Amino acid sequence: MTQETISSALDFAEKNLQNSINNLFELMKIPSISSEKEFRPECIRAGQYLVDMLNEIGFDAKLREGKGLPLVVAHYNNAESDKHVLFYGHYDVQPVDPLELWTSPPFEPCIKNINGKDVIFGRGSSDDKGQTLTFIEACRAWIKTNGKLPCRVTLLLEGEEESDTISLIPFMHENKEELKADVAFICDTDRWDETTPAITIGLRGNITGEVKIIGPSRDLHSGLYGGPARNPIVLLADMLGKMRDDNGHITLDGFYDGVPVLTPEIKANWATLGFDDKKFLGDVGLSVPAGEKGLTALEQLWARPTAEICGIHGGYTGDGFKTVIPSEAFAKVSFRLVGNQDPDKVWAAFEKHINSLLPSDCQAVFKKYSGGRGVAIDTTNPLIKSVETALNDEWQKPPALMGCGASIPVVSDIREILDMDALLVGFALPDDNIHSPNEKYDVNSFNKAIRSWVRILGQL
Amino acid sequence: MTQETISSALDFAEKNLQNSINNLFELMKIPSISSEKEFRPECIRAGQYLVDMLNEIGFDAKLREGKGLPLVVAHYNNAESDKHVLFYGHYDVQPVDPLELWTSPPFEPCIKNINGKDVIFGRGSSDDKGQTLTFIEACRAWIKTNGKLPCRVTLLLEGEEESDTISLIPFMHENKEELKADVAFICDTDRWDETTPAITIGLRGNITGEVKIIGPSRDLHSGLYGGPARNPIVLLADMLGKMRDDNGHITLDGFYDGVPVLTPEIKANWATLGFDDKKFLGDVGLSVPAGEKGLTALEQLWARPTAEICGIHGGYTGDGFKTVIPSEAFAKVSFRLVGNQDPDKVWAAFEKHINSLLPSDCQAVFKKYSGGRGVAIDTTNPLIKSVETALNDEWQKPPALMGCGASIPVVSDIREILDMDALLVGFALPDDNIHSPNEKYDVNSFNKAIRSWVRILGQL
Repeated sequence: MTQETISSALDFAEKNLQNSINNLFELMKIPSISSEKEFRPECIRAGQYLVDMLNEIGFDAKLREGKGLPLVVAHYNNAESDKHVLFYGHYDVQPVDPLELWTSPPFEPCIKNINGKDVIFGRGSSDDKGQTLTFIEACRAWIKTNGKLPCRVTLLLEGEEESDTISLIPFMHENKEELKADVAFICDTDRWDETTPAITIGLRGNITGEVKIIGPSRDLHSGLYGGPARNPIVLLADMLGKMRDDNGHITLDGFYDGVPVLTPEIKANWATLGFDDKKFLGDVGLSVPAGEKGLTALEQLWARPTAEICGIHGGYTGDGFKTVIPSEAFAKVSFRLVGNQDPDKVWAAFEKHINSLLPSDCQAVFKKYSGGRGVAIDTTNPLIKSVETALNDEWQKPPALMGCGASIPVVSDIREILDMDALLVGFALPDDNIHSPNEKYDVNSFNKAIRSWVRILGQL
Repeated sequence: MTQETISSALDFAEKNLQNSINNLFELMKIPSISSEKEFRPECIRAGQYLVDMLNEIGFDAKLREGKGLPLVVAHYNNAESDKHVLFYGHYDVQPVDPLELWTSPPFEPCIKNINGKDVIFGRGSSDDKGQTLTFIEACRAWIKTNGKLPCRVTLLLEGEEESDTISLIPFMHENKEELKADVAFICDTDRWDETTPAITIGLRGNITGEVKIIGPSRDLHSGLYGGPARNPIVLLADMLGKMRDDNGHITLDGFYDGVPVLTPEIKANWATLGFDDKKFLGDVGLSVPAGEKGLTALEQLWARPTAEICGIHGGYTGDGFKTVIPSEAFAKVSFRLVGNQDPDKVWAAFEKHINSLLPSDCQAVFKKYSGGRGVAIDTTNPLIKSVETALNDEWQKPPALMGCGASIPVVSDIREILDMDALLVGFALPDDNIHSPNEKYDVNSFNKAIRSWVRILGQL
């Protein structure tokens, strides 16, 4: 791909911006609220609108049946290279309540000038109609200027992201071969800040569950039994306390197996982001970093596993006091996982830890809830390098190589079902009010996002 | 006091046994259930019955007004010695529900032969009409045979022990001088076993309270904040775990100040009691002794302090799982105290421990509930020795010098208000069904108890 072909696609995109905005407005006018049954026909209409648009551009697009709402699937195989990209987005939107807080009607999109910036307002302007269209409009720019795409592209747009996803997972299972590509892009997240793009290269997984410690066969009087009789709360507190040393390291056997060492390159990238640990903690009333010592907050959130107690209960917890040694106590624990940590092995290590401290006359009853591995994108992959280059070209700044402390199911689902990396490359801003009244997307975000996708496609 | 005078009093008591039983039956026929309002006149009638009986024996007895039910106060000052004994008992009884489980009506006392033993059945036969009468009948035996008592005696019998004690404490405060004696006896507990009498020489005190740890200003998502954000449950578990070392010793600063060293004499006395640690734990489904290592269960229960967690709560504790780092967590803790441990100092040490582990951005909110010192009777006191001798003479076996893991408020109240030791010397058996249907008191218990009091009074 020459620089000229990229430039002409960029020029087209720039000149076509008003049309692209009009296309977005038409899509935004369709109230495709997936969580409200009466809007089901509108959801289908939004899907069909995208199918029509994609077919018009030159894709082979169809509305495909799912267990719930249909999926938009579109292929474009007339490409310069054999590289194949899967793009995931969604055409449904959040409900709009409370309606009275909107300054303009949610399904009547408009542009307002806010502090000198043109801003698109309306439900879906960002999440995810606006962000999805940036990719489609980039494809349009390539096809219109070069007659084809630089690489093969498949779009998979679901209609249930904001409600219960019923269709997506079975559909991916049933259409593995069709959907499998070299890399997946998801455009449903923020960029790092106004001037910095971002690629999410890691997500934490987790494994959650419960342990109940059963001691005496009934609740005991703490005077008549206190001393020789085992108190399950005391035991549980001790067991949980011993899961962590004074440096914040988790002491479970083999807990850190599979935790990747942070490369100097990524450490350096994160150091440039200007993440304000103090503000991050200050926003939630804290000021003393917890967790593992010697790590920044970002390093902890994006690259390190945790062991949290999310719930604990035992004995008498009402008003006043009851001098009781309870028969049992329980805790709910959650382990956030990174890299190649195995959820089942971590849970087994937790059970082993508890059992190793369990007196032979007590019982530990475990309940394992859902779990999933973390996602770690291999940043040495040349494909990732291409995306970094493209974003750097557009923003004149290298992208933040972000982690994410929480799980995003679709990333893990794509990884597990379709066996490929999924990169979160989003262009929204934290103040876009997604899921809230007055959702917005800056015209600049929309424009730069289209341009970024033009460059990314060109780099692949 | 010569052996002959004691013998003649014992002879009288023995010959008068049937009359004593008749006196008890008359008292038991009065349904003095203090917790049920409609029985209030019956309670007063029971008090008056005792006043009349005591006056008839030669006491100066009166029903004295209290804030609630009246108290029986009786003095006998015509004595061989100046020694002064206060006897505490109560004339009220427990309710009788469920009535259908009684094999004979609760307020129609009778004697049944059970496995070759004559047994008195009916509400109050043991608790505390039967036990109280053993002391009064012993006084009668002394006065009838020797014209006077060996020492001055004051009886204080309340009518609210089985409900809310309203009268007793203000009455003791208002009549300190009148009630103050050299030692107090309370006859409202069990003897050690069928053939072994008992003196309770120690009761544990306690101090209870609550600590709440407040961390983040709101509940946080464990994915988005887990790591750098402090989790109050994790912190609390760690703090509570560190209150105790691996030998079961409490690590609070100065916690053991005032804990008496167990004398070899008492250790030896307890060793002879044949207390079955295994059975004690086995009865509540346990088999591994908890608490401080190297101590028997009795030593732990009767002579050592504890730190128990009686309640704990934090985060999500419902069904399923919520990946939350809660804003706060709390625990309710109870410290059992012995000897001269100071409840306020122990609580202060607990607060200090928590605060020493508290990050500067978290808060610990403490709530101190009620507390009271333990009671430790000085067993080298010659008065105690006299009681031991008397019981040994009657039972041909030294009494068990028992401790009690729980608090018995009247003992502490007498100690605090009247500034004297109160000895629990009871003759009931664990199977007497006090507070249950078919309450009983063996005729042998009744007889030997009267004889024991005759000897105790003789020894003083």
